[in-house]
Amino acid sequence: SSAPDPIPATLFPGDGIGPEIAEAVKQVFQAAEVPIEWEEHYVGDQIDPRTQSFLTWESLESVRRNKVGLKGPMATPIGKGHRSLNLTLRKELNLYANVRPCYSLPGYKTRYDNVNLITIRENTEGEYSGLEHQVVRGVVESLKIITRQASLRVAEYAFHYAKIHGRERVSAIHKANIMQKTDGLFLKCCREVAEKYPEITYEEVVIDNCCMMLVKNPALFDVLVMPNLYGDIISDLCAGLVGGLGLTPSCNIGEGGIALAEAVHGSAPDIAGKNLANPTALLLSAVTMLRHLELYDKAERIQNAILTTIAEGKYRTADLGGSSSTTDFTKAICGHL
Amino acid sequence: SSAPDPIPATLFPGDGIGPEIAEAVKQVFQAAEVPIEWEEHYVGDQIDPRTQSFLTWESLESVRRNKVGLKGPMATPIGKGHRSLNLTLRKELNLYANVRPCYSLPGYKTRYDNVNLITIRENTEGEYSGLEHQVVRGVVESLKIITRQASLRVAEYAFHYAKIHGRERVSAIHKANIMQKTDGLFLKCCREVAEKYPEITYEEVVIDNCCMMLVKNPALFDVLVMPNLYGDIISDLCAGLVGGLGLTPSCNIGEGGIALAEAVHGSAPDIAGKNLANPTALLLSAVTMLRHLELYDKAERIQNAILTTIAEGKYRTADLGGSSSTTDFTKAICGHL
Ligand SMILES: CC(C)[C@H](C(=O)O)[C@@H](O)C(=O)O
Ligand SMILES: CC(C)[C@H](C(=O)O)[C@@H](O)C(=O)O
Repeated sequence: SSAPDPIPATLFPGDGIGPEIAEAVKQVFQAAEVPIEWEEHYVGDQIDPRTQSFLTWESLESVRRNKVGLKGPMATPIGKGHRSLNLTLRKELNLYANVRPCYSLPGYKTRYDNVNLITIRENTEGEYSGLEHQVVRGVVESLKIITRQASLRVAEYAFHYAKIHGRERVSAIHKANIMQKTDGLFLKCCREVAEKYPEITYEEVVIDNCCMMLVKNPALFDVLVMPNLYGDIISDLCAGLVGGLGLTPSCNIGEGGIALAEAVHGSAPDIAGKNLANPTALLLSAVTMLRHLELYDKAERIQNAILTTIAEGKYRTADLGGSSSTTDFTKAICGHL
Repeated sequence: SSAPDPIPATLFPGDGIGPEIAEAVKQVFQAAEVPIEWEEHYVGDQIDPRTQSFLTWESLESVRRNKVGLKGPMATPIGKGHRSLNLTLRKELNLYANVRPCYSLPGYKTRYDNVNLITIRENTEGEYSGLEHQVVRGVVESLKIITRQASLRVAEYAFHYAKIHGRERVSAIHKANIMQKTDGLFLKCCREVAEKYPEITYEEVVIDNCCMMLVKNPALFDVLVMPNLYGDIISDLCAGLVGGLGLTPSCNIGEGGIALAEAVHGSAPDIAGKNLANPTALLLSAVTMLRHLELYDKAERIQNAILTTIAEGKYRTADLGGSSSTTDFTKAICGHL
C-alpha cells in the first residue's frame, strides 16, 4: 500500500528561537509520520511593496494556496514605513478568529488545576481599527469599529467550534453597559447565532466581572467569544493561569477556511541558537493545525506525547524549571509517540 | 479637655444591603470614637432635573461641601431618561481617579498570599466618553478620548500617592503598540510626571502582558496607573486575586480634593434586610476615607480590628464561608478596637 499524498502546509519558522522550535515540530511530525510537506518561508530583509511589510508576497500566497500554516515568533523589525508582521498577516489573510485552547497541564503545577477553556477572539476590527486622530494638541481619540459582518462571523465560528468539540457553553464577553452601540451590536450578533444552537448554553458576561471570575474559578468557563481587545487581554490572562505563553497554543482562522497556527510568545533573542528554547507552544499549535485538517488521530497522539513528557518531568526546558535542551525534550516527546 | 470638632462627611447608604453595611460603619466609627458626623443621603424616588438622575442635588451639594463621603452600593433604577447613578457621581463630582488598594487578607486563604498593590484608574474619559455612532446599519463605532489634562491629573495623583504611602514603583498600563495616539498620549503624560519623582521607579506594561503577570505573580506590581477601561478590568481582576469585591476598598478622588469612598460590590437584593451582608468592603473603604482625612491612627486601628476579626475566623459572614450575622461580625470588630 502506498503512503497517503502529503498535504502541503506553510511554515514560518520566524526569528530568534523560531527556527529551533520549528525544527522540533518537524522532527515530532516526522516521528509521528504526519503526512505534511512543509513549505518554509522566512521573513524578508526588506519591505515587499506588495505587502507593505517584511513579509514576502510569496509567503502569503503559500498560505492562501495551502490553507494551512504554522508560524513561529516574528519580531517586527524596528523602523518606519511598514506594518507589524502579525497585524499584516491578520489583515492580508483576513484572519478573523483567534482561537486559543487553554488547559491545565497535568504535572505542571500552577495555582490552578482546573482550567479547560477556549478563548475565541475577533481578530480584525474593534479597537484595532488603526483609526486615531488628534482633535487639538492634548486631545486625541481612537475609533473602535464593530460590524455585524465580523461579529456574526466570529460568533458563528465560536458556536460551530463548541458544537464539533462537544463544548456545552459559550460566553460572550463585553462591556455593553458602557459601549451600548458597539458591544451591544456584538452581543446582538452572538444572540442571533445562539438561537441556531439551542443545545449550547449561551450567556453574556461583562469583561471586568469575567476577569474576576476567571482568577477566582476558571472552571466556570467553557468557550469564550469576544471583540478584539478583550480577546487580547483575556487570552493572555488565561495563558497565565496555566503557566504562560510558552505552553499555550493558538490558531488563527481566516476566510476561505485558512488556518494559521502560531506560537504567540516572543522570539526570545537572548536564548536564540542556544538549544534552550521550549517548543511546547509551537508544538501544541501544530496540533491545532492537525485538528483543523481533521487528522484527529495524529493530533491526539502528538498532544499526548507532549503532555506525557511534561508530566513525567524528567525532560523539561529551563523555563519550566528543568535543564533539558530543546533537542533532548523533543527526543523525549518522540520517544512517547 | 473637650472633644475635637466633628468632621462632617456625606453618607450614601445606598440600596439593598447598603443600609445594613452602612450601619456597621457607623457602629465601628462610634466604637473607635472617630470624630465624624454623618450627613445621610438616600437616592431619590424620582429624577432630579438638576442632576438628570435619581441622585438629589442636595446630596451632591453635601459631598461638594464636606469634600469627603462614603457610598454604599446603588442599583440604578431601570428605565429611560436618566443616567447611571455611579456614572452621574463621577461626572458631577469630577471624580477623576479611582483608587483601589488590594492586598491579601491574613487568614483568608485564596490562591494568592502575596498581593499588595494599588490600582489607580482614570475615571472620567477614555472608552467611557459615551460617544457612539452608527455609520450605516451593521457598522457602529465608539470613540475613546484621551486628554493630556486628565492623563496628567491621574498620573500626578498616582505618583503623589506612591510617594506619601512609601511605595517604590509605578507601572503605567497601556496598549500603545496598537493605540499609539491615545494610549501613547497617556504614556507621555506618565513619563513627564515620572521625571518629577526620580525616587520612584517607573515602568510601562502592555495590558495583555500585565494581566498575565498579575495572575502568575502579582507581587511583581506595586502601584498601577491606567486609562479608564483598563482600570475597570484590572481592578476587578486584582480584587478576584484576594477574594472579590466584598473584601476590597475603593476611593474616588475628585476635583477640589473630594474623596468619595465606596464599596464597589452590588446591592445583593436577595439577602437585603436579612442581617447576612458582609460589611468589609464598605468598612475598608471608610478606612481609606479616614486616611484621606489624615486620621491615620483611627484608620490603622479600625483596619487592624477588621483584619484581625477576619483572620481569627470565628466571626465570618456566609460569603466568607462562615455563619455570622452582619451585626455579630460588626460587634466582633468593635471588640477588637
Ligand atoms: C503584538 C500585539 C500587536 C498583539 C496584539 O495586540 O494582538 C499580541 O498581543 C497578540 O495577542 O497577538
Ligand atoms: C457598573 C459599571 C458602569 C462600572 C464601570 O464600568 O465603571 C463598574 O464596573 C465599576 O467599576 O464601577
